[in-house]
Amino acid sequence: MERLEEILRQIEPIDPTWSRRAQERLDDLTKPRGSLGRLEECAQRYVAAARTMDPGELWPTVIVFAADHGVTDEGVSAYPKEVTHQMVLNFLAGGAGINVLAAQVPAEVKVVDVGVAHDFPEKPGLIGRKIAPGTDNMVLGPAMSRAQAVQSILVGADLAAEAAEAGCRLLAPGEMGIGNTTAASAVTAVLTGHSVAEVTGKGTGLDEPGLKHKIEVIQRAISVNKPDADDPLDVLHKVGGFELGAIAGLILEACARRVPVVMDGFISTAGALIAHRLHPDVAGYLFAAHRSVEPGHQAALDDLAIKPLLDLGMRLGEGTGAALGFMLIRASLAVLNEMATFSSAGVTDRTD
Amino acid sequence: MERLEEILRQIEPIDPTWSRRAQERLDDLTKPRGSLGRLEECAQRYVAAARTMDPGELWPTVIVFAADHGVTDEGVSAYPKEVTHQMVLNFLAGGAGINVLAAQVPAEVKVVDVGVAHDFPEKPGLIGRKIAPGTDNMVLGPAMSRAQAVQSILVGADLAAEAAEAGCRLLAPGEMGIGNTTAASAVTAVLTGHSVAEVTGKGTGLDEPGLKHKIEVIQRAISVNKPDADDPLDVLHKVGGFELGAIAGLILEACARRVPVVMDGFISTAGALIAHRLHPDVAGYLFAAHRSVEPGHQAALDDLAIKPLLDLGMRLGEGTGAALGFMLIRASLAVLNEMATFSSAGVTDRTD
Repeated sequence: MERLEEILRQIEPIDPTWSRRAQERLDDLTKPRGSLGRLEECAQRYVAAARTMDPGELWPTVIVFAADHGVTDEGVSAYPKEVTHQMVLNFLAGGAGINVLAAQVPAEVKVVDVGVAHDFPEKPGLIGRKIAPGTDNMVLGPAMSRAQAVQSILVGADLAAEAAEAGCRLLAPGEMGIGNTTAASAVTAVLTGHSVAEVTGKGTGLDEPGLKHKIEVIQRAISVNKPDADDPLDVLHKVGGFELGAIAGLILEACARRVPVVMDGFISTAGALIAHRLHPDVAGYLFAAHRSVEPGHQAALDDLAIKPLLDLGMRLGEGTGAALGFMLIRASLAVLNEMATFSSAGVTDRTD
Repeated sequence: MERLEEILRQIEPIDPTWSRRAQERLDDLTKPRGSLGRLEECAQRYVAAARTMDPGELWPTVIVFAADHGVTDEGVSAYPKEVTHQMVLNFLAGGAGINVLAAQVPAEVKVVDVGVAHDFPEKPGLIGRKIAPGTDNMVLGPAMSRAQAVQSILVGADLAAEAAEAGCRLLAPGEMGIGNTTAASAVTAVLTGHSVAEVTGKGTGLDEPGLKHKIEVIQRAISVNKPDADDPLDVLHKVGGFELGAIAGLILEACARRVPVVMDGFISTAGALIAHRLHPDVAGYLFAAHRSVEPGHQAALDDLAIKPLLDLGMRLGEGTGAALGFMLIRASLAVLNEMATFSSAGVTDRTD
């Protein structure tokens, strides 16, 4: 707990002075004021969080946390559990959605086994930080111990620290784990106070009876474990997942280091809720890349008061939406730093 | 007219067989079916228009058509007329929004003087195709002659042909011209049947009285010229602009060559309306990069039945939104062509 408390102590509120400085510069660029809309808002948000107008090369990085979920024993997913480890191998081979979209940015992809139910042979590129081979089934008791919850947060914090040390100035958590929308819905329901039905969706593709069953399973897990909504670690250990903890930890450490974080979809935003409950100043450092079709995502975004940049009907996860968000945020900083001003370009400004 | 008729004869409907082929491939990739949402739709749309699954390097190109508008004599813009030529110089110096955002893609930017009211000295990089030093004031009579309207279309067609010959497989029109939202609103009102008030906005930043005046000016121009909504050339020459003609021509030639076109905002979509009225098969080749805050933009998009990809509150023009759209479309083709399939990656597909 000492390390976690140390991280939390280092997090400061974002600095609105920097936001105003960015606004002044944006207003002096050769374009009608405000005409780049939310791109201007992105630049301001980045600057206020990072406290620099020009961060230079961003080295955008997606850290994909893979983990399994004991609750898949209840039949809550359209895909079998072994897909988690198969997809880890796909990430390492470069064939998954996140690999392809990150290459478009280009952004680095790191793959972390934080709790996959599979013994990987030594694999180049795989970062082994397995806490356990999957969580326990949360309808029978806590998904993990409280100590494991802290451990999962520290895994994410370590990875964020490493990325920042390597020069990364724009970070995103990604995830893979059959069953992880079940854990994310449970966490979102408890932390936001929404009903389970309001924040539970079809994940990778359940049908209507499957969705109904998933909702019942989550309700059962909550009534068995009675997580305390005022204690984020209690929620994480009882109805969370290892990747949710790691995502929360990545966000906390990134905030402590003033590295803005791009949330992908539902899972990463559920992780952000945990981080936010551990430290209220977290929200200012976050971008929401897109609006996922998972209904719980909007509830979590509303709770954090963050508006997504894209709305493309995506629901793949892995960090794929965040990769697209990277492009927009980088573009916003290029506008801020590379466009000419009215005076430098000799363009007449409006006279009013 | 002969050249224009030749272009129109070459335009064929998009091919749904290619769209289905793309869908089949997308469904075999290692992701839940449909989980990349509108990115999948983009890939399908591109493939159906270009009739290839893998176009290779796209060499995305924005062709910025700059022109002045006689109607600025009526005080319809927040910026003075000289800003058009000043911004052309800014484009050539690389300091404008479109330069910075195109560099992010990266995409080529070409700058065409199709009717700026300024004598440019010989300028490296400036493509001189001036039809006249600005249109005439449309409240006093036609903005241009019918022959000039055809000429402006052919300027756009020539530039599209050159880009395609140079290897471009994704094209966007951009524009610069103080007063051009006035012409775009006039064209959109006439071609869609909406009232002028419904399709007229504040452009670069008019206040409420300024907007009211702009609406009255457009209404006067339409009542003076009586453009025939069933004759797109009549509409273009009476209440259009040289850049609107060039945009229409760019689109028509691109369609004839099966090069998909990304519309930026209101001006390029108004140009697309003209192209669409000249040939109904045009719509299938078009992408709408974003939803501009100009109210006429949504009306024009609805008319073409095309849904924008982004909604970022942008209203700069120049092609800036299209540059962001390039990134998404290129990403969608990377997904289609670079992701692993379930069988190639050894990932278990769902069993239903």
